[in-house]
Amino acid sequence: MVSNLQNVLSVAAKGMKKSAIRELLKLTKDPEIISFAGGLPAPETFPIEELVEITNEVLREDGGKALQYGSTEGDDKLRELIAELYKNMGFDISIENVMITTASQQGLDLLAKIFINRGDKVLVGLPSYLGGLQAFKAYGAELVGIEFDESGMRSDDLEAKLAELKIADDLPKFIYIIPDFQNPAGITMPEKRRKEIIEIARKYDVLIIEDSPYKEIRFEGEHQESLYALEGKGQVINFGTFSKIFVPGFRIGWIIAYPEIIDKFVKAKQATDLCTSPFVQKIAAKYMEKGYFETNLKKTIQLYKEKKDIMMRAFAKYMPEGVTWTKPEGGLFLFITLPDYMDSEILFQKAIKKKVAFVVGHAFYCNGKGRNTMRINFSYVPKDLSEIGVKRLAEVIKSEMR
Amino acid sequence: MVSNLQNVLSVAAKGMKKSAIRELLKLTKDPEIISFAGGLPAPETFPIEELVEITNEVLREDGGKALQYGSTEGDDKLRELIAELYKNMGFDISIENVMITTASQQGLDLLAKIFINRGDKVLVGLPSYLGGLQAFKAYGAELVGIEFDESGMRSDDLEAKLAELKIADDLPKFIYIIPDFQNPAGITMPEKRRKEIIEIARKYDVLIIEDSPYKEIRFEGEHQESLYALEGKGQVINFGTFSKIFVPGFRIGWIIAYPEIIDKFVKAKQATDLCTSPFVQKIAAKYMEKGYFETNLKKTIQLYKEKKDIMMRAFAKYMPEGVTWTKPEGGLFLFITLPDYMDSEILFQKAIKKKVAFVVGHAFYCNGKGRNTMRINFSYVPKDLSEIGVKRLAEVIKSEMR
Repeated sequence: MVSNLQNVLSVAAKGMKKSAIRELLKLTKDPEIISFAGGLPAPETFPIEELVEITNEVLREDGGKALQYGSTEGDDKLRELIAELYKNMGFDISIENVMITTASQQGLDLLAKIFINRGDKVLVGLPSYLGGLQAFKAYGAELVGIEFDESGMRSDDLEAKLAELKIADDLPKFIYIIPDFQNPAGITMPEKRRKEIIEIARKYDVLIIEDSPYKEIRFEGEHQESLYALEGKGQVINFGTFSKIFVPGFRIGWIIAYPEIIDKFVKAKQATDLCTSPFVQKIAAKYMEKGYFETNLKKTIQLYKEKKDIMMRAFAKYMPEGVTWTKPEGGLFLFITLPDYMDSEILFQKAIKKKVAFVVGHAFYCNGKGRNTMRINFSYVPKDLSEIGVKRLAEVIKSEMR
Repeated sequence: MVSNLQNVLSVAAKGMKKSAIRELLKLTKDPEIISFAGGLPAPETFPIEELVEITNEVLREDGGKALQYGSTEGDDKLRELIAELYKNMGFDISIENVMITTASQQGLDLLAKIFINRGDKVLVGLPSYLGGLQAFKAYGAELVGIEFDESGMRSDDLEAKLAELKIADDLPKFIYIIPDFQNPAGITMPEKRRKEIIEIARKYDVLIIEDSPYKEIRFEGEHQESLYALEGKGQVINFGTFSKIFVPGFRIGWIIAYPEIIDKFVKAKQATDLCTSPFVQKIAAKYMEKGYFETNLKKTIQLYKEKKDIMMRAFAKYMPEGVTWTKPEGGLFLFITLPDYMDSEILFQKAIKKKVAFVVGHAFYCNGKGRNTMRINFSYVPKDLSEIGVKRLAEVIKSEMR
């Protein structure tokens, strides 16, 4: 070993911390714990038999290509099918606008690699997906938080922060937005807010990153047009993934953008992992081609709606006054706000003892706030355990309330 | 679109070029071209039927976990099996020393992320694997080339460069070495040279990166103990991959290092792609457990030896005087040196017209030298086309010779 490892690490590595979520999740491995932590899809939605059929076909019909190196842009058939999927959602795109990534996390990493120099500003929601914050920080981004209201990222605060940064000649590289069933807040941004944000981004000439891993999982309410489609002129880069609407274990996501932006992502990806596994890409393409994707997605939405409803009923039944929570129209999460004086990190330790787990909310706040919040996942826990878990959690909260 | 994309790109992105190899490979897509370019394994080595059997088992017996998120470190069973494989090669390691990567290219990217600040020096062979050079440059590394002789990286030049850099208080972050059947040179470093290099690295307190994707593919000559095993004190980080000894399409590689170094890789990987596909990892683990790995590897070695021998005979038969080439004891490549006045880039254009392709050698030289060299892959082209390809190539070379 070299005599002082710390000395030879990069500035980035010195700043890397293991995810708070990940470390907390280790505590939740006890099988007796009912875990609302994590962001796992329900394994009962995984289409095992369809995948047996398809993998056999892919291996026997196309094994030579499926098991070989593939192109950095991704499997052409899969790119075409994804372009098709998004065209049906109002995107004016073709295969040239789509690059496959090794799931969305890689997209976020490449995004940071392409745009961020150490010290560059990035605007993020308060709260915002922790994996995004980590990916940006690994490249030295300085995160500037934008306040939330019940419609998601506030446009007035966004405009104020941008005006400030413009004066300082320090405009951010991009605004990071999760508009649909936001992680962790569970909030969906209405069209009016989306349009306001697009206008502001145009005014300040700043890119919008639209990260939307759950968009297809809507239980109720109206479909909201995506920022990419609403903007229509390439100022938005859209991130999608199969992780929540098919299986996370394939590690397949995609980026949708103008070709000149896709070109930068391709160059960056080449030096990062050459290509995403052609084997899983070909399986995914066939899964879509055969129509299994839509059938299974419908079942997933139905199941998650049931799980969400069970949880909503349990929350109403058990939670003490003073506790509020978001009512998500889709996705995997809801967000709890406790009275101001409470600290979810203290609650977490007690909750673990009572065999229930969640994620502390402040992990999602780049400004260290949100200590009285927590994220609750409702997709993973089996239906029959959900109410018991909420009851346990409510008891822990009550015992800590003044 | 933002008004000036170039303005908002990172310094890294501004410096990213598409791989010269990749761009040249596009020219070789014509099916009439016999391509010695690329670094593809032979598809006839892909164990299709075994994989049909195994994927069915993995999906039916372990689908819930195989299709879910996995741990960042990698599938425990696979890590254990890889540790076992390397213990048999003299490595004193256990599962804690192994992290799974999304193939070796990700390992190289994470390596750069962990160690390189813009402007840091890295020592690389003249020549050296292009994907490594690209990964390091993406983080702003300044590459310092070390001369080669018939034993690979020269220890006298290595020591001279290190002495120079030490005086300048600018010691490199690591020395990047491909000791076995080097890409592109096809050279294997003998034990004496390995020991010299380890001594020098210790003297200057610099890490060694040992990238060895072909080690298992030895046709003849004696097994050389790896730098990791020879050094034995954690100053070497070893990179391995299934891409050349099983299938590249799974995108599975691994890093072997002391746990405190593995810990840095895990943190970096977490923000990069969360985890490598548990689906392909579980398939790979079962493939090893069932003993298919060893059986198939033996067949692969036999096939590549035959392909190498055919090519060696063709080279001896057709190449004009003044042309020399390495005689690899294993791996996938040999390296041609033409008379000094020749330029393989000019030859390349003519070769394409004559329906044969290779990779220009200077792409592998960080100092722009090697214009009279070319890399030849012998694993991919079918046996019956190899001689015709060499004949075409020899004719192109002859026509350009004075």
